[in-house]
Amino acid sequence: MDWKPNRYEEKPLYKQITDYMKTKIERGEWGYDTKIPSQRDLASHFNVNRSTIVSALQDLIAEGYVEGEHGGGTKVTYGKWEKQSPLPNWNAYIEKGSHYPNQPFIQKINQYEFEKDLIRLGTGELSADLLPKKLFQQLMSSADETDFHLGYSEPKGDLQLREAISKRLREKEIYTTPSSILIVSGALQAIQLLSLSLLERSARILVERPSYLYSVNALQSAGIKLIGIERSINKPLSIEKVEKLKNRFDLSLFYVNPTFHNPTGALMGEDERKALVKNSIRMGLPIIEDSAYEDLWIDKKPPLPLKSYDKSGQVLYLGTMSKLVSPGLRIGWVVGQEGVIERLADTKMQTDYGSSTVSQYVAKRWMLSEQYEEHSAYVRKMLKKRRDFMQFLLECYFSHLATWSIPKGGFYIWIVFHFRLNFDKLFKKGVEKGILIAPGHIYDRLDRTSLRLSYSYASLEEMEKGLRILAELIEKEMISKKM
Amino acid sequence: MDWKPNRYEEKPLYKQITDYMKTKIERGEWGYDTKIPSQRDLASHFNVNRSTIVSALQDLIAEGYVEGEHGGGTKVTYGKWEKQSPLPNWNAYIEKGSHYPNQPFIQKINQYEFEKDLIRLGTGELSADLLPKKLFQQLMSSADETDFHLGYSEPKGDLQLREAISKRLREKEIYTTPSSILIVSGALQAIQLLSLSLLERSARILVERPSYLYSVNALQSAGIKLIGIERSINKPLSIEKVEKLKNRFDLSLFYVNPTFHNPTGALMGEDERKALVKNSIRMGLPIIEDSAYEDLWIDKKPPLPLKSYDKSGQVLYLGTMSKLVSPGLRIGWVVGQEGVIERLADTKMQTDYGSSTVSQYVAKRWMLSEQYEEHSAYVRKMLKKRRDFMQFLLECYFSHLATWSIPKGGFYIWIVFHFRLNFDKLFKKGVEKGILIAPGHIYDRLDRTSLRLSYSYASLEEMEKGLRILAELIEKEMISKKM
Ligand SMILES: Cc1ncc(COP(=O)(O)O)c(C=O)c1O
Ligand SMILES: Cc1ncc(COP(=O)(O)O)c(C=O)c1O
Repeated sequence: MDWKPNRYEEKPLYKQITDYMKTKIERGEWGYDTKIPSQRDLASHFNVNRSTIVSALQDLIAEGYVEGEHGGGTKVTYGKWEKQSPLPNWNAYIEKGSHYPNQPFIQKINQYEFEKDLIRLGTGELSADLLPKKLFQQLMSSADETDFHLGYSEPKGDLQLREAISKRLREKEIYTTPSSILIVSGALQAIQLLSLSLLERSARILVERPSYLYSVNALQSAGIKLIGIERSINKPLSIEKVEKLKNRFDLSLFYVNPTFHNPTGALMGEDERKALVKNSIRMGLPIIEDSAYEDLWIDKKPPLPLKSYDKSGQVLYLGTMSKLVSPGLRIGWVVGQEGVIERLADTKMQTDYGSSTVSQYVAKRWMLSEQYEEHSAYVRKMLKKRRDFMQFLLECYFSHLATWSIPKGGFYIWIVFHFRLNFDKLFKKGVEKGILIAPGHIYDRLDRTSLRLSYSYASLEEMEKGLRILAELIEKEMISKKM
Repeated sequence: MDWKPNRYEEKPLYKQITDYMKTKIERGEWGYDTKIPSQRDLASHFNVNRSTIVSALQDLIAEGYVEGEHGGGTKVTYGKWEKQSPLPNWNAYIEKGSHYPNQPFIQKINQYEFEKDLIRLGTGELSADLLPKKLFQQLMSSADETDFHLGYSEPKGDLQLREAISKRLREKEIYTTPSSILIVSGALQAIQLLSLSLLERSARILVERPSYLYSVNALQSAGIKLIGIERSINKPLSIEKVEKLKNRFDLSLFYVNPTFHNPTGALMGEDERKALVKNSIRMGLPIIEDSAYEDLWIDKKPPLPLKSYDKSGQVLYLGTMSKLVSPGLRIGWVVGQEGVIERLADTKMQTDYGSSTVSQYVAKRWMLSEQYEEHSAYVRKMLKKRRDFMQFLLECYFSHLATWSIPKGGFYIWIVFHFRLNFDKLFKKGVEKGILIAPGHIYDRLDRTSLRLSYSYASLEEMEKGLRILAELIEKEMISKKM
């Protein structure tokens, strides 16, 4: 909700709220049978006493706008008694849609991140002060009128941007012409496009477990099953196990996140990479390499990407500007065999007619700018400081409660508790105490003991406070009461 | 392909081409079994004689990179004789993907629009010189660092942009709070989102025939069937017919494009609109109102949108900045019941994590800018000139061949010939003669007699030349040879 009552108005608060809700209902924004938020949520959102909400609802009930339900909720019943046909029941539509809704935890996280002033302990993006806002503003303000174009973009995306990407990729020993590159609106969109373009509805793909892919439903909604292979931060991937699963489940693809894995932080070694590429060719199991965090190394440069060892087009490589530069830009890329890129581009044209040309323009300028290296180095330095500080805090507050490994890059520490956590309770209590957490459950439906912590977003002060609150909460709620 | 041979190099042209193709093949960009373009296409693309291509291919065949096929094509066979497992066969993947590929005509149009220097007689966008490039550059260069943000965006999109949209919508008597608005990456994305979020895989929806929706496969790929209701530019919609179809096919929604319809230019009258909204409520058939061309009136303001007559949330309203301001921006919006908007926003978060914040920033500035009205008036004036000129040309060249109606706004004239057209031949011959056309078939699979002409893109000179060529071609190829 985007409105708040005004304390300085003459009209009493409860009446302002009644009027606001009436308008929403009369205009059909809250349709027939819509469940309205709980009294508690309304009170907290409007920042008023619960009794004010009760008065407002009483008025609405009296005038036939809403009705109380047995279960305790309140539903819109406006129009119930009018002598007309039933109002549109969008709820039935909402339930029928083939795309799965987000997991409840993620829905709540998406909402709270913008609504409430919480310390975000698990967020997957850089803190705003690490993003190159000033540089972007300079790029934008120095834009020459002739530089950018406002029309629809070509199917694979702006050629100059693809050239700039192909140049940057050479630094990683990935050699590719621009025609084998597709610009996408972030790596997530690439995942949706490939799930719609390269896989049939009953396909099964292999993913590491835990995995980022469990946190979105792009593949699952396209009817594709995820088969998990357990992934530990310290042990190399077992090729035999991959092969067994490949044969058992007739797997179509293997989605891997080899460099600073989300959510575990794991880093595949060079030999492991070479073996994986070689064997995936032998087995006939193409690879999707998600390189989202590749440039975010802290201690030293990671091994070359899988794609650099691939001479046959076996690997489809995903990159993004989100993690190092700007998630808001929504610019990523896919590198692969030309026919595959063309298929993905064709689906993209039917999905959104290409990515924003303004974003593509800024991305291109960024790729070619002198500040590129400088900014990267700066972010690495700051991430090191943040990671080391979080490590220090974990040792202070969590060493008796959990174990974890120190990642060599990326954003995340995967912390595994010595006991089960009640995520629902922990999440809710956390919000009450001012912290937002990312339960391990999001990345592995079977997980009951882990959290994804991120040192990329919260400030050092917030980290200290947030982790302290978290440790206290876990000690109090999860141990003493044996939950 | 993004490379051309260089005539000033010492290496002979054919050898340059051989080396280029070898590299593409060795790197796996052209994978095993990939069909390479025809000799004719290669010659035209590289701008060399056909014999040069033949020499290059002979070398590639001799070295085992490609093989000629019986049908006449050439396929990549590199790796065939190596004692290793089969190379990845992405072709099998490409064919299995559940999303339908674009229609061949559209694939070709998408490709030619950026590759070849053709007169575009059917394109659905404003000519580059009508887009407010200078104003955009000013907006961008006056961006204050504190103004825009580079992080992920909130699920429904930037609040200030939603506020600006809600304000603009009041001018059309659509009253809505920002929480009932979702920012999307163009109206096409809204269509994909609703097809994934509100409809089950076997659902059927009603569309006008011809319709823009036949030109994309977002709905069809989600398993949804389109049921067409014939739509003539001069006759009002028959509510009885809608009702019959609703009952017969158990229709879920009705997608309409009431204002300057794509591709016919049809405009629904005020009474027709009121009747449609009223009856759709009675029948329980919610409406998707696509308002893409609403602001592009030429003669006088169109009636109010269907959404303005809707007091119950029956209508889901789609808007876009593409047609009047900039398609490259990729900014559109959906207005509807809050629960529906939230469901769509949730799917969007799983699809691309929201639209570009840079685009949203520019869109917001645009919506609030003083140039908004001025630019709109300018575009209207220019469209009038263009439409009138095209009308004049049609009378000169086509009055004995076809009929058409003059639209009161939008981009298109739907021209219906007195005889069948061989679209394949006409399209191909057209490209040879330097024109690009949009066959009616794209918008109505049964159509064999119509073309969508657009007066928005080609310059007046191009229009004259292009239409003259088109008329000659049709007279020569379609009539004399009775095709
Ligand atoms: C592993 C991984 N891949 C892809 C993405 C998506 O990033 P974007 O769509 O912003 O490029 C993320 C973001 O959280 C990620 O962690
Ligand atoms: C009727 C109609 N709706 C929607 C669109 C999509 O426009 P966009 O996605 O650029 O907003 C178009 C563009 O051709 C159209 O003609």
